[in-house]
Amino acid sequence: MARALLALASALPAVLALNNGLALTPQMGWNTWNRFGCGIDEDLIVGSAKALVSNNLTGLGYNYVLIDDCWHADSRDPDTGAPVENKDKFPNGIKGVADQIHSMGLKVGIYSSAGTYTCGGKFGSLGFEEIDAKTYASWGIDYLKYDNCYNEGRAGTPLISYERYNNMSRALNATGRPILYSMCNWGEDGPWNFAVDIANSWRISGDIYDNFDRYDVRCPCTDMLDCKLPGFHCAVTRILDFSAPLGQKAGHGHWNDLDMLEVGNGGMNFDEYVTHFSMWALVKSPLILGNDVTNMSDDTKTIVTNDAIIAVNQDPNGSPATRVWKRSLPDGGDLQLWSGSLVNNQFVFAVLNTGTSNHTEDISLIDVFTDQGKSFGSGTFTLFDLWQKDDSGKWGKNIGDFQGSVSVTVGSHQTKVYRATPASSSKRALEEL
Amino acid sequence: MARALLALASALPAVLALNNGLALTPQMGWNTWNRFGCGIDEDLIVGSAKALVSNNLTGLGYNYVLIDDCWHADSRDPDTGAPVENKDKFPNGIKGVADQIHSMGLKVGIYSSAGTYTCGGKFGSLGFEEIDAKTYASWGIDYLKYDNCYNEGRAGTPLISYERYNNMSRALNATGRPILYSMCNWGEDGPWNFAVDIANSWRISGDIYDNFDRYDVRCPCTDMLDCKLPGFHCAVTRILDFSAPLGQKAGHGHWNDLDMLEVGNGGMNFDEYVTHFSMWALVKSPLILGNDVTNMSDDTKTIVTNDAIIAVNQDPNGSPATRVWKRSLPDGGDLQLWSGSLVNNQFVFAVLNTGTSNHTEDISLIDVFTDQGKSFGSGTFTLFDLWQKDDSGKWGKNIGDFQGSVSVTVGSHQTKVYRATPASSSKRALEEL
Amino acid sequence: MARALLALASALPAVLALNNGLALTPQMGWNTWNRFGCGIDEDLIVGSAKALVSNNLTGLGYNYVLIDDCWHADSRDPDTGAPVENKDKFPNGIKGVADQIHSMGLKVGIYSSAGTYTCGGKFGSLGFEEIDAKTYASWGIDYLKYDNCYNEGRAGTPLISYERYNNMSRALNATGRPILYSMCNWGEDGPWNFAVDIANSWRISGDIYDNFDRYDVRCPCTDMLDCKLPGFHCAVTRILDFSAPLGQKAGHGHWNDLDMLEVGNGGMNFDEYVTHFSMWALVKSPLILGNDVTNMSDDTKTIVTNDAIIAVNQDPNGSPATRVWKRSLPDGGDLQLWSGSLVNNQFVFAVLNTGTSNHTEDISLIDVFTDQGKSFGSGTFTLFDLWQKDDSGKWGKNIGDFQGSVSVTVGSHQTKVYRATPASSSKRALEEL
Amino acid sequence: MARALLALASALPAVLALNNGLALTPQMGWNTWNRFGCGIDEDLIVGSAKALVSNNLTGLGYNYVLIDDCWHADSRDPDTGAPVENKDKFPNGIKGVADQIHSMGLKVGIYSSAGTYTCGGKFGSLGFEEIDAKTYASWGIDYLKYDNCYNEGRAGTPLISYERYNNMSRALNATGRPILYSMCNWGEDGPWNFAVDIANSWRISGDIYDNFDRYDVRCPCTDMLDCKLPGFHCAVTRILDFSAPLGQKAGHGHWNDLDMLEVGNGGMNFDEYVTHFSMWALVKSPLILGNDVTNMSDDTKTIVTNDAIIAVNQDPNGSPATRVWKRSLPDGGDLQLWSGSLVNNQFVFAVLNTGTSNHTEDISLIDVFTDQGKSFGSGTFTLFDLWQKDDSGKWGKNIGDFQGSVSVTVGSHQTKVYRATPASSSKRALEEL
Repeated sequence: MARALLALASALPAVLALNNGLALTPQMGWNTWNRFGCGIDEDLIVGSAKALVSNNLTGLGYNYVLIDDCWHADSRDPDTGAPVENKDKFPNGIKGVADQIHSMGLKVGIYSSAGTYTCGGKFGSLGFEEIDAKTYASWGIDYLKYDNCYNEGRAGTPLISYERYNNMSRALNATGRPILYSMCNWGEDGPWNFAVDIANSWRISGDIYDNFDRYDVRCPCTDMLDCKLPGFHCAVTRILDFSAPLGQKAGHGHWNDLDMLEVGNGGMNFDEYVTHFSMWALVKSPLILGNDVTNMSDDTKTIVTNDAIIAVNQDPNGSPATRVWKRSLPDGGDLQLWSGSLVNNQFVFAVLNTGTSNHTEDISLIDVFTDQGKSFGSGTFTLFDLWQKDDSGKWGKNIGDFQGSVSVTVGSHQTKVYRATPASSSKRALEEL
Repeated sequence: MARALLALASALPAVLALNNGLALTPQMGWNTWNRFGCGIDEDLIVGSAKALVSNNLTGLGYNYVLIDDCWHADSRDPDTGAPVENKDKFPNGIKGVADQIHSMGLKVGIYSSAGTYTCGGKFGSLGFEEIDAKTYASWGIDYLKYDNCYNEGRAGTPLISYERYNNMSRALNATGRPILYSMCNWGEDGPWNFAVDIANSWRISGDIYDNFDRYDVRCPCTDMLDCKLPGFHCAVTRILDFSAPLGQKAGHGHWNDLDMLEVGNGGMNFDEYVTHFSMWALVKSPLILGNDVTNMSDDTKTIVTNDAIIAVNQDPNGSPATRVWKRSLPDGGDLQLWSGSLVNNQFVFAVLNTGTSNHTEDISLIDVFTDQGKSFGSGTFTLFDLWQKDDSGKWGKNIGDFQGSVSVTVGSHQTKVYRATPASSSKRALEEL
Repeated sequence: MARALLALASALPAVLALNNGLALTPQMGWNTWNRFGCGIDEDLIVGSAKALVSNNLTGLGYNYVLIDDCWHADSRDPDTGAPVENKDKFPNGIKGVADQIHSMGLKVGIYSSAGTYTCGGKFGSLGFEEIDAKTYASWGIDYLKYDNCYNEGRAGTPLISYERYNNMSRALNATGRPILYSMCNWGEDGPWNFAVDIANSWRISGDIYDNFDRYDVRCPCTDMLDCKLPGFHCAVTRILDFSAPLGQKAGHGHWNDLDMLEVGNGGMNFDEYVTHFSMWALVKSPLILGNDVTNMSDDTKTIVTNDAIIAVNQDPNGSPATRVWKRSLPDGGDLQLWSGSLVNNQFVFAVLNTGTSNHTEDISLIDVFTDQGKSFGSGTFTLFDLWQKDDSGKWGKNIGDFQGSVSVTVGSHQTKVYRATPASSSKRALEEL
Repeated sequence: MARALLALASALPAVLALNNGLALTPQMGWNTWNRFGCGIDEDLIVGSAKALVSNNLTGLGYNYVLIDDCWHADSRDPDTGAPVENKDKFPNGIKGVADQIHSMGLKVGIYSSAGTYTCGGKFGSLGFEEIDAKTYASWGIDYLKYDNCYNEGRAGTPLISYERYNNMSRALNATGRPILYSMCNWGEDGPWNFAVDIANSWRISGDIYDNFDRYDVRCPCTDMLDCKLPGFHCAVTRILDFSAPLGQKAGHGHWNDLDMLEVGNGGMNFDEYVTHFSMWALVKSPLILGNDVTNMSDDTKTIVTNDAIIAVNQDPNGSPATRVWKRSLPDGGDLQLWSGSLVNNQFVFAVLNTGTSNHTEDISLIDVFTDQGKSFGSGTFTLFDLWQKDDSGKWGKNIGDFQGSVSVTVGSHQTKVYRATPASSSKRALEEL
């Protein structure tokens, strides 16, 4: 009866998610890993936090500053077993970093793994859940990304994965401090099935690849429903394919995480990054910047500051867009139509072209409004192109009223995103239905 | 040795099913969900029960009135842990509703989930099986639909699912009140394998979609034998495909549930609804109306009151029809032949066209009687078209005696259903065999 | 290191199999089910045993008389829990039947299920393994076929299935009476992996269908390596396909069981039954007759008494033939080459045509002797056609010496079987290698 | 976050692997099985060890002398339960053999199975892990190959396999003697996921077949990510295909084992053995000779003594090559590009042709350096052909500087291997980046 979930999403409290009141909309922020890997220290992190503020990214919602792997000392405290940070990198401790970040009005996150070691070879949290959660809380941590390396065979059935990840979920709750819990088990055993009420988000696949569509053998699965090797080097359109059936499982406080953004890291062109950012937003993935925010190109800024797209991601309805259709194009690649609901009788849809040349298609509004039904979709709708600015310079240009269909031209690897709302006349007619 | 099961079905007692003596033929009734979702209350339910009676649907066998999700108060009784109903919606309690339904000579069902929450976000029964079963019994409940949301990872192997669902089975039996147990775990882990003697029926797939054949990415599996995401928005012909190998596992008291009917809800045309209703009947799915029975069109009434089709579903033999073949049509779609046994040397077969245009085919009676053997199938058979009325106005028109084959024309998305019985002459010959 | 198993098969003791000393070559006999289902009684069984003797089938090795399902009383002994037979069908008890069979010099088998019920709805042995084994031993039982119905979810991982079936294995061993243990879990969880030393044979698929190649939706899996619904109505060539990768796992005392023979039951023609019987023999399946042995046609007798084919099955080497190749034929179907080793430097190979018309092919002896290597296969070999009789009327006609290849013509659905041995000249040359 | 593992491989200590300090690069040596099977004794083993020395194979790194299956007495010591060797084959005991091997400066390994029996039918170690490990240590054993036969159903989920294999890992560690732990569970349940820190290497597939590319039905799986029957007779190119996604999981002290080498055993031609040896080296498989080292052809010596290829395998970076692409060839088969990183800004790539005729292709250096990025790959590189000798007779001929692409001609079943390093000019430019 999954249908209930979707239909009721806007009406339901977040009680169905992890009961910490966090991530009512997908979390936003910045993480060290994609760009800096293990090369992190206090200066980098605090400097990046400052850049988030000075570039007004915080004003747009990017409020979590996330310290990924390799913040660790060589070993835990030999007496207490508590986690210890690398003092060379963090002379004031993680707590010192957290204090500075908090003083900017931001929140701070940290990283560990539900295994013996982290993926970078540092001490992991398996068997140390309680002391780790307590220590993180004592440092003022607001967010935990919890990885899956070196899990000692504790995967392969949903219950085994659930128990391993729930141990940390309970430990975090027990601290009394609200700590956003971001599971990163790469989609193993279907966290969209088992983790909806123990985590605020869960990764759905192997690690993202700063590439639009190259197949890499290290990301070998063709779907994620029963993938035994999520791997890494998963290109953007592959992760998007993986996510297509999973949107039904996400909602307020519990999201599908398509992995951190690569916008600005250089592996894709402008249109490809627009597609990446737009689609992550539509399917309600967390939007976690992964570039160097102290040194951004204009193109990068243009993309990550599109507040019309961000508004789709942060829409209070919390309803991920779904893929209505995916059609092969004659010259390879495909055309995809995605559609979703927003609050206040508004909707969003996107047309994505993964092919190698421009394509023009009449998009049926009946298709766009498949979930709302034919009589609804037969109405007249006002469309706003969210990658065009209106006369006042705001993202989201009114491109007119449409009935039946709208002709859309999409360049190679490009995505067009539209907000739709019933036109005034149509609205009246609908109300009379 | 699954063969035994089928061959012996008519001779065996219901002991192989859940030992409550119920659902010797597939249950019939009406459920709130497909049309009303969470928008239910006493008036709606009692009013619908009255409509079942006034429209004489009860006379045809639709005797269970099923209250689906969202009958709940915000929380259980804080002292006893017992389930509590929403007093605004049910001022006289569920018991008050049950009393009224019983007074009409009908039976009443309720809904819960084998998880922490129901799919609609209400309190679930996981860990509360005994008190919930007792309370339902005290309310006079005759039927439980038991869903699968928020199951805390307790799925993924048959034994884990079995134990979770058997906990409620035992609790229901322990009440001493016969309560029909309708499992709804969406086919996970193969309930047709593990649940035959703990439940009266089990859902075989994700939720039905009021649509004939549209592929929706939210119902992503290609078959249900090892599906890790049953999902929802599963179109009628997709669920029918899912059911094809499973008929062998059903019988008296333990049925494959293809989900509640969408007839009358508006997403399909007349022929499509005829197909939906006919095929659900042939494969011995429970026939649970899901429309607004207080306000039915003539077309809807025509379909759901076809007592010749209902008789196939309720035939004492309890033997689901099986798909003899499925052949691709040149213009897309396919033609399917389904065939099954009834009591008293009678048989039923159906020809289904999922393609886009009319199709005429000589249907081989050897094919129809594949399970009975070539010498049987070589006889002469009298055929009754169950969607035509005879001169007296009864469903099931005698269309003559046939040997070898019968030419059948089936429109796009249409199904023709025939009852067959050896012709008198042939019958005599067969008896002499 | 599965290779060792094969290479050493002839040299190894049966210690690797269930340690009861039985089935050093595949068991042979007759079983009630395929022809008589639940319609069995003492007269039928004793009469059939006598027919085995009078038709000299016992002289050919068919020594086990197997009582399948439905020998049971309605319930166990209420005091002791011991199994009880149906006194109407078996007025002298199973023991009385066993005594008569033993007096003919034959052995007797019985049937139960590792579940709550048997497939025919009688009491099963799950949880009653010890008392059942003891009772069977006290009756003089020599063989147990142990089915898989109503297993209460105890399947889905090899360990769960292993433990369920090992419970009976241990109980049988504990009786002190050698009882051949024939597992029938339809290949679930890969008994070829987990059961090699707890059972003498294991079924590899759903139930056989007396049909050469019709696809039936009730046998839905495309292979058996991870099949979640073995089902029934599995045609002969489908079971043979299922068996192709599994021969490597069988050997002395532990065999792949392709299910009981249908020869003589009427669903196939002469050539098809020859294929069925030949291939079951080559892959070292148990040869259990499933027809009415009191009333056999000449064709049936011809097939099941071919002692050259039986000798292949009972060859002391115990090495199942493997499929060397399977090649599509232009008019549909395929041509298959199977090859295996016998004792004393002898070999067997078969060419099978599943297509619709005759086919002639030069069969490369290098291919036939793939496992022996190119230099061996380059020798000269004397071939005996095992479905032709020599001048003395014995099966196995010398068709000459061949080097390089042999031209074989195989009719539709036919199989040609050849015994091969290095020609004298070649043998000398090989010895000098 | 698998990416970290690769990126950090050269910087990380071996702590992430089994903590015994062994196999920092893939182990090299010789094993009895592929050529001699169970036909082993002291003379053979000591003689082979001497041949390793006299042929200077030890100088190239082949230092482990591995005694495979069938060294066993018929049973364990009846009093202590300790393993006992066959005194006929090993009159001085395994210890006597080990002493002789140690005296040559070599190391010695032994074999057992994590089951009731070894694959050759000898006593296995399941339940005897501690006494076996202690005894091996007391004999002076340096290496254990641990097989998977007769595992009593203890497989099917990663945790069950992990626990079974970890029992021996802990027992070996507990001896205090560093013993290289070579798991051989044929890839079941994904040892690349669960065994990275409990074993030094793990087999990834069924047993190797001394054949380049013949499909054998006894190696039935199409990939190894969830293979339920690894089997044997897996041809070289099939194992290479299996390994393609798995390189990401290997590193210092924990390697994917593609099975022992067949070079010199006669089933392949020179080019095929070059491919076999080269690709095993590139993906960092252990290089364990499986031929008769006392009697090697010149071709065999040429291949296994190519120290430029060995250097790739033993490169301190420990980074397995990955497959960049695999492209179908018009006449069947495919062309494959593999690429990997070495220390000191050096790289290796290979072009493999599995087709039936010569093929010439312009290999893009951007493709070769996919992991390093486009700007890196756009540089100029000096290439060394590792299967050509330079003027001084050393393997690895400088074939010039290349930018953009290099034209490569590869014969049927041949592999060309190149070491690449930025050309001096280019290097300077890169440093200025």
